[in-house]
Amino acid sequence: MPHNQLDAVLAQVDAGLEASLDRLFALLRIPSISTDPAYAEHCQAAADWLATDLAALGFDASVRPTEGHPMVVAHDQGAASARHVLFYGHYDVQPVDPLALWEFPPFEPRLVGSGDTAVIRARGASDDKGQLMTFLEACRAWKAATGSMPAKVSILLEGEEEAGSKSLPAFLDASAGELEADIALVCDTDMWDRQTPAVTTMLRGLVGEEIEIRCASQDLHSGMFGNAARNPLQLIGEIIASLRRPDGSVAVDGFYDGVEDLPEAMRDQWRSLGFDESKFLGDVGLSIPAGEEGRSVLEQIGARPSCEINGVIGGYTGEGFKTVIPAKASAKISFRLVAGQDPQKIREAFRAHVRARIPADCSVTFSGHGASAAIALPHDSPLLRQALGALRDEWGKEAAVVGSGGSIPVVGEFSRRLGMDSLLIGFAHVDDRIHSPNEKYDVASFRKGIRSWVRILAALAEA
Amino acid sequence: MPHNQLDAVLAQVDAGLEASLDRLFALLRIPSISTDPAYAEHCQAAADWLATDLAALGFDASVRPTEGHPMVVAHDQGAASARHVLFYGHYDVQPVDPLALWEFPPFEPRLVGSGDTAVIRARGASDDKGQLMTFLEACRAWKAATGSMPAKVSILLEGEEEAGSKSLPAFLDASAGELEADIALVCDTDMWDRQTPAVTTMLRGLVGEEIEIRCASQDLHSGMFGNAARNPLQLIGEIIASLRRPDGSVAVDGFYDGVEDLPEAMRDQWRSLGFDESKFLGDVGLSIPAGEEGRSVLEQIGARPSCEINGVIGGYTGEGFKTVIPAKASAKISFRLVAGQDPQKIREAFRAHVRARIPADCSVTFSGHGASAAIALPHDSPLLRQALGALRDEWGKEAAVVGSGGSIPVVGEFSRRLGMDSLLIGFAHVDDRIHSPNEKYDVASFRKGIRSWVRILAALAEA
Repeated sequence: MPHNQLDAVLAQVDAGLEASLDRLFALLRIPSISTDPAYAEHCQAAADWLATDLAALGFDASVRPTEGHPMVVAHDQGAASARHVLFYGHYDVQPVDPLALWEFPPFEPRLVGSGDTAVIRARGASDDKGQLMTFLEACRAWKAATGSMPAKVSILLEGEEEAGSKSLPAFLDASAGELEADIALVCDTDMWDRQTPAVTTMLRGLVGEEIEIRCASQDLHSGMFGNAARNPLQLIGEIIASLRRPDGSVAVDGFYDGVEDLPEAMRDQWRSLGFDESKFLGDVGLSIPAGEEGRSVLEQIGARPSCEINGVIGGYTGEGFKTVIPAKASAKISFRLVAGQDPQKIREAFRAHVRARIPADCSVTFSGHGASAAIALPHDSPLLRQALGALRDEWGKEAAVVGSGGSIPVVGEFSRRLGMDSLLIGFAHVDDRIHSPNEKYDVASFRKGIRSWVRILAALAEA
Repeated sequence: MPHNQLDAVLAQVDAGLEASLDRLFALLRIPSISTDPAYAEHCQAAADWLATDLAALGFDASVRPTEGHPMVVAHDQGAASARHVLFYGHYDVQPVDPLALWEFPPFEPRLVGSGDTAVIRARGASDDKGQLMTFLEACRAWKAATGSMPAKVSILLEGEEEAGSKSLPAFLDASAGELEADIALVCDTDMWDRQTPAVTTMLRGLVGEEIEIRCASQDLHSGMFGNAARNPLQLIGEIIASLRRPDGSVAVDGFYDGVEDLPEAMRDQWRSLGFDESKFLGDVGLSIPAGEEGRSVLEQIGARPSCEINGVIGGYTGEGFKTVIPAKASAKISFRLVAGQDPQKIREAFRAHVRARIPADCSVTFSGHGASAAIALPHDSPLLRQALGALRDEWGKEAAVVGSGGSIPVVGEFSRRLGMDSLLIGFAHVDDRIHSPNEKYDVASFRKGIRSWVRILAALAEA
C-alpha cells in the first residue's frame, strides 16, 4: 500500500474529527438500554441509525431481527485483498441508575475540557458506542480518502451485550457463512495506559460449580450432637481449604495439566510494562498478593488459572447465635481457566476431589454453571504481528500484549462457532467509569483509536 | 409428709391435666423468640403471662426488667420446711427458620395422636415452655390439693436463654439474697429413654464466637482479581479446616488443658445403660460417628469438649451464579466445654488461633456470644439421693445419672454467683426436634413430668 495513501486517510481522520464527534453524539443521544424492556424501541432506533450510517458509507448494511434486540450486519467487499476482517462492537448500553449520582443527563452527551484532557461525557461514551465508532470512522476516512476499504470488511454490531448476549449464539450459527472471516476485531477493551495501546490475546475461561452437602436428616442441636454428628459446614470448610496448597496453587488433581508457563519473551514484556502491583491492590484496600507464590499479580490474573469461592451459606446466619449443626450447607465455586485446560475435565476433577471428601453417610449434589475454555491467540500469529506494527506506527511505541482475567463471551463464541480468532484492541481507560454514573471517553482515545484502526486495516490488508 | 397427702396431689395432677395443657398452649402461642429484636414485645408478653399465672397461684410474682428481655421472679414461703428450692426455666424460644420445613405453624400449638403417643407440637413445646410448665403445674397441684407448697419455693424464669443469657449474671448478682436457695432445680434436659428418667450431673459449658473477616474494600470481579486478591471465604474455609486435627480432636492450642478422662465407675454405668450408637445416629440419618477417634458417642457428647461450626455466610448465595470475590464473610463457631476448661481462656485461644491465620492486609472482628463453664454435681450429694428416690417412686426404676452435651449457662452462673448446686431433671426426648422445625413434646413427658416434680418437692422438703 502506498505510504502517501495511508497518510491521506490519516489526514482525513484529523480533518473530519469534528464531524466524527457529531455523529458519535447523535448515537449517544439514543438511550439504548438493553436490559430494560421499556427501552426496546431505542435499541431498535440505535440499530437503525447505525445501519443507515453504514449504508451511507457504501456498506451493504441491514438490521436483522432476533428474539431480543436486533443485530446490525454490514459488508464491504473492499479493494483487491485476500483478507477478510469481521469487526464486532455493541450498541447497547448499561442502565443509568442511580441517576442522582450523574453530574449531567446521561443521554445528553457533551464535550468537556480541551486539548489532551478533553473528554466525551455520556452513558455509552466509552462502552461501547465511542469504541465502536472509532472503527466506523476509520472506515469512513478510508472511503473518503481512497474511495474503498483496503480489505474485505464485515461488521457485526450487537444490541444485547450488556444483557447476556442471549441471541448471539444462534445468530452466529445461522450466519456463519456470512460472518466467517480471517480474524475478528473486537473493540471493547482498555489501553495499557494513556501512552500505550494494548492487544489482549489471552482470555480466561470459566467453570462454575455449586455444591450442596447434606449430612443429618434434620438440623441438630450442637449440644446434643456436637462432636458425634457430622457437620456439613465443617466439610465445606475442609473442602475449601483442600482446594489450595500452602503455596497458593490449586490442589485439584490434574488442574495444571496442559497449562504452559508464560513464554519468557512475554514475561519480559510484562515486566517492562511497569505494572504497579501496590497500586492495583491498594485501590481495593489490599496490599499482599494472594494466590500462587512466586508469580506476579499480572501473570496470576492474566495467564494463570484460579479457583475462587464465590459464595457459601449454611446454618444460622441471622442476628445472634443458634447452636445448630445444620443438615446441609452449600458453596458456589468457580475456576478461571487458561489455554490447555479442558473445562469438562476440570469439572470432573473438581467433582472427584469433593466426592473423595464426603463421608459415606453424607451426600453431595453438584450443579454446573457455565463451562467455557480459555482463549489464546497464538503468539506467532502473523495478523497479531501486523496489528502490533500498525499500533507501533501510530503510538510510537510497542503495544502491550496482555491477558485478561475475565471472560468476553463473544470471543469464545467466535472461536467455537466460527473457528475464528479475535484481536481485542480497545482504547478505553480504567477510569472511564463504564457501568457507573458519569461515564466518559477521552477525545484522545477516540481520535487515536480511529487512526489506529486506519493503520490496522492497512496492515491486515497485506496478506 | 403423710402418704395420703402426696396421693391427693398426684390425683389432682391427673384430674387437672386438660386444664394444664390449655395453659401450656396459651404460653406456646406467644412467639417469644429472644434472638430477634422484632419479637421483643412477645418476650415481654410471655413474661407478663407467667407472672400473672404465678400470682394467681398465690406466689409473690413480678416481672423484672433487664437490659434485654425481662426476668420473672416468684416466691412462696411454703409449709414448715427448712428447705428452700429455686426452680429455673426459660420462656424464650429459638427462631423458627427455615419456616418452609415446618409441617404446621410453629406458634399454633396442637395436640396430635392419643394415648401413650400423643404429642404437643409447637416451637417451645419441649424447649423450654413445656418443661417449665411441668414445674408450675406441680406447684398448682400442691396448692390445689393441700393449700400450700411443701417447702419454700422460688422461681426464676429467664427470657434470654437462647440468646446467650446476657442479662443473667448481673441480675443474679443484684438478686443474690433473694434467689440463693439450698438447691436449684432446672428443667431443660432429656430423659434417658421413654421409660427411664435422667438426672444430669455433668453439663458442658459453651463459648460462642462470631467472626467477620474483611479483605478488599469492595466486592471484586473474580475475573479481574481472581488469584491475586485475598478471598475471605477461602480464609473462613481454611480456619474451619484448621480447627480439627485429622484424628477429630480440636486443634486450638491448649484446648484440652485441664480436661480429665471420665472416671472408670461412670464409664461402667454408661456402658450398662446400653446406649445404641447406631440408633442414636441412625435416627438423624447418620451412621458414621464424627469427632474424636477411639471415644464412644456417649462419651464424646457427655464428657468431651467439642467445636462446632453453626453458621457461615459470604458472597453470592442466591439463584444462579455470580463470579464475585466478596469483601467480607462471617462464621458462627461454638465450643462445648467440660470440667477443667476456662471459657475465657478458650475464647482467647480461639481468637489467637484465628488471628494467626489472617493476612496483615485483612481484618477480623470477633463477637462473643455467651461464655459458661461446665458443671459437675458431686456424686454423693444428699439432695441428689432424695431426687433419685422420688423419681424411682414415680417411674418404678432407677434414674440414669448422666452427662449432658448441651450447655445450660444458668447452672454455671448459679454455681459461680450464688454458690448453689443444681439438679437437672428434664422430661424431654432426643426426638423432640428442639431448635429445629416441627418441635414437639410428649404428653407423657408433660404429665409424668408434673407428677415427678410433685414427688421431688415432697422429697426435698424433708431436710
